[in-house]
Amino acid sequence: MLDGSCNEFLDLLSSREPVPGGGGACAFAGAMGIALGSMVGNLTLGKKKYQDVEEDIKGLLIKSENLKRKFIKLVEMDAQAFYPLSQAYGLPRNTEEEKAVRERVLQAALVGASEVPLAIARSCCEAIDILGEYAAKGTRLAVSDAGVGACFAKAALLGAKLNVLINTRIMKDEELKQKIEEELEWLVEKYSEKADAICLDVERSIIE
Amino acid sequence: MLDGSCNEFLDLLSSREPVPGGGGACAFAGAMGIALGSMVGNLTLGKKKYQDVEEDIKGLLIKSENLKRKFIKLVEMDAQAFYPLSQAYGLPRNTEEEKAVRERVLQAALVGASEVPLAIARSCCEAIDILGEYAAKGTRLAVSDAGVGACFAKAALLGAKLNVLINTRIMKDEELKQKIEEELEWLVEKYSEKADAICLDVERSIIE
Repeated sequence: MLDGSCNEFLDLLSSREPVPGGGGACAFAGAMGIALGSMVGNLTLGKKKYQDVEEDIKGLLIKSENLKRKFIKLVEMDAQAFYPLSQAYGLPRNTEEEKAVRERVLQAALVGASEVPLAIARSCCEAIDILGEYAAKGTRLAVSDAGVGACFAKAALLGAKLNVLINTRIMKDEELKQKIEEELEWLVEKYSEKADAICLDVERSIIE
Repeated sequence: MLDGSCNEFLDLLSSREPVPGGGGACAFAGAMGIALGSMVGNLTLGKKKYQDVEEDIKGLLIKSENLKRKFIKLVEMDAQAFYPLSQAYGLPRNTEEEKAVRERVLQAALVGASEVPLAIARSCCEAIDILGEYAAKGTRLAVSDAGVGACFAKAALLGAKLNVLINTRIMKDEELKQKIEEELEWLVEKYSEKADAICLDVERSIIE
């Protein structure tokens, strides 16, 4: 899906087409956020002033580039998980039997459609950790980019939460539903705050 | 720039290349946010259940598609404003004369490099207003997408703020600096809160 042009991606996103939807957009926003981290890393490498952190930056670059690729894969995975769900929603429900079949298919599709945005949320948290390190260690010239990255990763995390909830709310498997929602709540609580702190630190370091 | 593939955009963003940078990424995130609004509109149009708001949705769709195009233009404008700035930073400063020339060129470049992210911030606020209407009037089936859009628009607004500040902080024209920073402060204060309220409303409407 990301082999197409950015303009095509935006037009598909705006359309009635089932994918990309909000979940895929969150994975893409996460990819942009961590890509901004890689940018900070690449602008820091080889600079005399930052020789002391050269090895740290190299390690961060491996992490951020891997995570970028993971986000790209999650855009596709979100599309793959959403298709069966949109098909299930479209099944007929005129008779009791049809209703029962639709419900079974829907419940099966809900699992993947909830687990992919949960995986996106987890990756956003990883991104926030890495962006915090870039903000602290990377070149001051690009510190705003690490801050922007953290803003994006937080937005993608909150967006992923909505994409989980819209599926878990109708999930019948109470145990799975609770497990997913509890993890999500914990991630959002911990990492929203961390992302805010990074952005605030970046802003302070700019205006000081 | 957005005619290239999404993957290329992400790779350019990660690289040492001066553009796209954080500003362009914010404009792109804004475009994704408002595109999600258009998606809600397109999924609402023609639905019997939403006949009463059909005309409102048509009006919103014109607004959101126009704003999407504006964000796309802002990605390019940010690149155009950043080039002269990155060139100015690269000018020699060995002699007093060189320093004076560099400072003059830099100060001139800072104006555009501050005003484009300010324009991005203003557009994010427009996006938040429109996404609030989509969240309130659009199909319940896609309400999470309006919420995700609002999260993105807020992140792009906060990101644009950092991109303004990194330039205005070294701006010598105190009057212009103050004017830009005051408008920005006002926009961020008012619209961060509005975006948060939209996301919270969307979350409540999902889990109720």
